[in-house]
Amino acid sequence: MDESSRPLDTLNSARGKPVMVDLKNGLRYVGKLRAFDIHINTVLEEAEEHHNGEVKRKVGTVFIRGDAITIISPA
Amino acid sequence: MDESSRPLDTLNSARGKPVMVDLKNGLRYVGKLRAFDIHINTVLEEAEEHHNGEVKRKVGTVFIRGDAITIISPA
Amino acid sequence: MDESSRPLDTLNSARGKPVMVDLKNGLRYVGKLRAFDIHINTVLEEAEEHHNGEVKRKVGTVFIRGDAITIISPA
Amino acid sequence: MDESSRPLDTLNSARGKPVMVDLKNGLRYVGKLRAFDIHINTVLEEAEEHHNGEVKRKVGTVFIRGDAITIISPA
Amino acid sequence: MDESSRPLDTLNSARGKPVMVDLKNGLRYVGKLRAFDIHINTVLEEAEEHHNGEVKRKVGTVFIRGDAITIISPA
Amino acid sequence: MDESSRPLDTLNSARGKPVMVDLKNGLRYVGKLRAFDIHINTVLEEAEEHHNGEVKRKVGTVFIRGDAITIISPA
Amino acid sequence: MDESSRPLDTLNSARGKPVMVDLKNGLRYVGKLRAFDIHINTVLEEAEEHHNGEVKRKVGTVFIRGDAITIISPA
Repeated sequence: MDESSRPLDTLNSARGKPVMVDLKNGLRYVGKLRAFDIHINTVLEEAEEHHNGEVKRKVGTVFIRGDAITIISPA
Repeated sequence: MDESSRPLDTLNSARGKPVMVDLKNGLRYVGKLRAFDIHINTVLEEAEEHHNGEVKRKVGTVFIRGDAITIISPA
Repeated sequence: MDESSRPLDTLNSARGKPVMVDLKNGLRYVGKLRAFDIHINTVLEEAEEHHNGEVKRKVGTVFIRGDAITIISPA
Repeated sequence: MDESSRPLDTLNSARGKPVMVDLKNGLRYVGKLRAFDIHINTVLEEAEEHHNGEVKRKVGTVFIRGDAITIISPA
Repeated sequence: MDESSRPLDTLNSARGKPVMVDLKNGLRYVGKLRAFDIHINTVLEEAEEHHNGEVKRKVGTVFIRGDAITIISPA
Repeated sequence: MDESSRPLDTLNSARGKPVMVDLKNGLRYVGKLRAFDIHINTVLEEAEEHHNGEVKRKVGTVFIRGDAITIISPA
Repeated sequence: MDESSRPLDTLNSARGKPVMVDLKNGLRYVGKLRAFDIHINTVLEEAEEHHNGEVKRKVGTVFIRGDAITIISPA
């Protein structure tokens, strides 16, 4: 994620790169960032679901509802 | 779900295909994606309700309120 | 609920038919769908309140606030 | 509550009649429906607060914030 | 609180009178209603904080954020 | 906080004065009220974080997101 | 964070400086404030995730969804 002054610019610069998305329910999704919108609805590709640091399952392409998300960070 | 740059495009490309919808309350609905809107209100057909990895019941056509959803992924 | 492309169309086609409405608090209301709006505020007639699979009480006509709802499915 | 096609029409037809208002926190208020608005902010008169099926106290006229409510049904 | 058809009219008629404001977190504030707005943000004067039916502290003038409130009733 | 008819007027009259801000998560911030907006996003200066009635740490200038707040009262 | 009358002015004056961002889920992110918006969506650089006062992991650049945040304070 490169230099920018608005939060969504930061997400934009991460498109196509691997990211971790942490949810309010404690789950984490790790995959390639394909898409997001102003609600932070987010789509990852080739994603895996993690819980307590372990991979639980491969989920492929996953749509994550923005309000379920706490943070998005580079994987 | 095919290549696209907005999250709802990804959902759109999944219409008519089997998906899993996970809720904040821990339940999962597995069925064919018939419809969704910008709130992510979602309708599945021939759906089953899962809890802790087991099928609890067949629910047929189910309307899921968007704000109850965490993720939608291919089944 | 018949074929349609928007989630509210699906609810509309269920008017006058028996449905189950599940709430975030774990309660379920089973009755005939009389009315709903874009917030998914919903009115059932001849409704019963269920908890843990058992009928707790008959509630007659019941107004359910949309944001308390997780799913609506045919009864 | 009489025949109508919008949820608020149903509430409107209950004005002046005894209703039960159940809250997300498990409390119930039973009284005569005086007023409500589009947020489902609701005012009851001659109201009682119930908890676990028992009357806890008389509250007279009570304003209930709409987003605290799960259901409203005839008393 | 006197006769009126909108919920905020009821609050308006309680201005300057003692009220109880119950919060989602279980606390209650008892004081004289000075001000409120459409979000139900509320200001009480000469207020006391109650918990489990006991006065915990005197808080004087208190601003209560509307979305923290469940009910407002006469004290 | 002086005489006024809108809740935000009350906050306005408290600018520059010591206040306590209680959060939904049980923490309290005590400091001088520098700024607030219509969402009740609030900035305190020379602030301390309290938990269970004890000072946990000095936080200096703190920005508090409005929706995390339950009440603001004079310190 | 310098003198200003609106909460976002305070955040603006902290750009490029080290801050702590506390979340509703109990986690804390400590890093350099790069960006924020009106929803308080926030981006930190060279960030660390803390839990119970201990560093759990380095997260580099992190996007934090505004509604997950309780407070932002200087680190």
